[in-house]
Amino acid sequence: MPVDGAPQELLVDGIERDSVPALDRGLHYGDGLFETLACVGGRARFLSLHLARLALGCERLGLPAPAPEELRQEIRRLAARSERGIVKLILTRGAARARGYRTTGTEKATRITLRYRWEPDDPQLALEGVRVRTARLRLGENPALAGLKHCNRLEQVLARREWSDPAIAEALMFSSTDHLISGTMSNVFLVAGAKLRTPRLDRCGVAGIMRSVVLREAAAAGIAAEEALLEASDLARAPELFLTSALIGVRPVRSVDGECRSPGAVTRELQSRLAPLLAASADA
Amino acid sequence: MPVDGAPQELLVDGIERDSVPALDRGLHYGDGLFETLACVGGRARFLSLHLARLALGCERLGLPAPAPEELRQEIRRLAARSERGIVKLILTRGAARARGYRTTGTEKATRITLRYRWEPDDPQLALEGVRVRTARLRLGENPALAGLKHCNRLEQVLARREWSDPAIAEALMFSSTDHLISGTMSNVFLVAGAKLRTPRLDRCGVAGIMRSVVLREAAAAGIAAEEALLEASDLARAPELFLTSALIGVRPVRSVDGECRSPGAVTRELQSRLAPLLAASADA
Repeated sequence: MPVDGAPQELLVDGIERDSVPALDRGLHYGDGLFETLACVGGRARFLSLHLARLALGCERLGLPAPAPEELRQEIRRLAARSERGIVKLILTRGAARARGYRTTGTEKATRITLRYRWEPDDPQLALEGVRVRTARLRLGENPALAGLKHCNRLEQVLARREWSDPAIAEALMFSSTDHLISGTMSNVFLVAGAKLRTPRLDRCGVAGIMRSVVLREAAAAGIAAEEALLEASDLARAPELFLTSALIGVRPVRSVDGECRSPGAVTRELQSRLAPLLAASADA
Repeated sequence: MPVDGAPQELLVDGIERDSVPALDRGLHYGDGLFETLACVGGRARFLSLHLARLALGCERLGLPAPAPEELRQEIRRLAARSERGIVKLILTRGAARARGYRTTGTEKATRITLRYRWEPDDPQLALEGVRVRTARLRLGENPALAGLKHCNRLEQVLARREWSDPAIAEALMFSSTDHLISGTMSNVFLVAGAKLRTPRLDRCGVAGIMRSVVLREAAAAGIAAEEALLEASDLARAPELFLTSALIGVRPVRSVDGECRSPGAVTRELQSRLAPLLAASADA
């Protein structure tokens, strides 16, 4: 394919194909869900956790879910095709059975799986951390959609358009009621007084898989952690913070809007605990 | 096409085709806009108003806008193919140039135009009005997206899934801060004391073309009208209310959650004023 950053492989409903029906509700309404999986050593990391989130999303949106075993096999096959790659799975409500928003209950999901090259990371980033900014755009609040990795992502697209400086890795986003929620493509954790705090995601935001792994590993390590309503002042006060995502694992933040921060003991401990899970492509 | 309610004609970038590239950002993120045009006598109603709204949407989302003359010609051609029809135009940010939300500035919009059959309306509906309910789901607030007819429509999809009774024509939606906003696919006007009140759409909702025509015609008729912050109590108190959309024009409401209302003088006057514009497929 001619486009830089285009996938190396693309399947639609399991068949090598580069297009989807123009009647697909994913295209008309963003009526779908997606998962982005990091694949290392030919295996998709935290595959079971990703599939569980997808299944929950299907339930909440009333999407016809394909058999999990079929999805698992397809992702495994794609992951096995390279030593290091990214697999993106999009699941939409399929072709519209009628004009308009109404669903008929006869929809059949469309499954789009894409395998991308995953360039090796600069190892300095995990050590020194990344620069982030705060986004001007606020996230709308909707408990019905909160937590889901759904395909209505215009807010993230617009927030990502706020900067082009490649030295800035991410933007932190607040909600319409002024609560810190997440990055455009990552979750965020603040560390204060040896305690982890990450935004509650019951009104907006995506419940990241790596976020859940970090909370689990923190509990196992005896690190206190809470999901909380966080404000700009909490962000300003936190001496240490980090981002998480399927791709970056735990990534320290070295500055927020130019103000310096530094990775501390809690971030380092979590990075150490996660390292073997990430390297071995743990399934859950 | 086999599907009931499928379009009679479908063009992708002007070419008869029934699929779009699987890398389209419309599919991945709902990164696009749409317009639904009523076509009568072989002409698309309020075509200039629809194109102006689309152009404004392109500007606000930073979408590469196609030449308006090209869009106008294509919609005109489709409209001319039947005495009565619906043309839907979707404009997306086109194929992704890279993985992730980031835009590169080199995107080229994808244009999808669909022509649907438009079954004749039951004339009783315009006289007696329709039954509506109030939706449980609330609309998230985002000034950056408010007013736009963008393709992030999961809220409407979920609200439409709240009922299946065909006797209910529409659901009225409130915002996350408890303000009345619109129907799932229409705007709403309350009439109280010979004055029109319609929700402000600066935090969510779609700025409907028929809504703007009604406001214009009300001004011309000397009917006082305001865009206001409206609450459930305003809805409960309004003795008369109606819905608007490109397809239904001005449609009285006969009941809200089972409580009766009746079309009054203001609704009737606006229906009369709009009738010739709708019948003649006014351009603006």
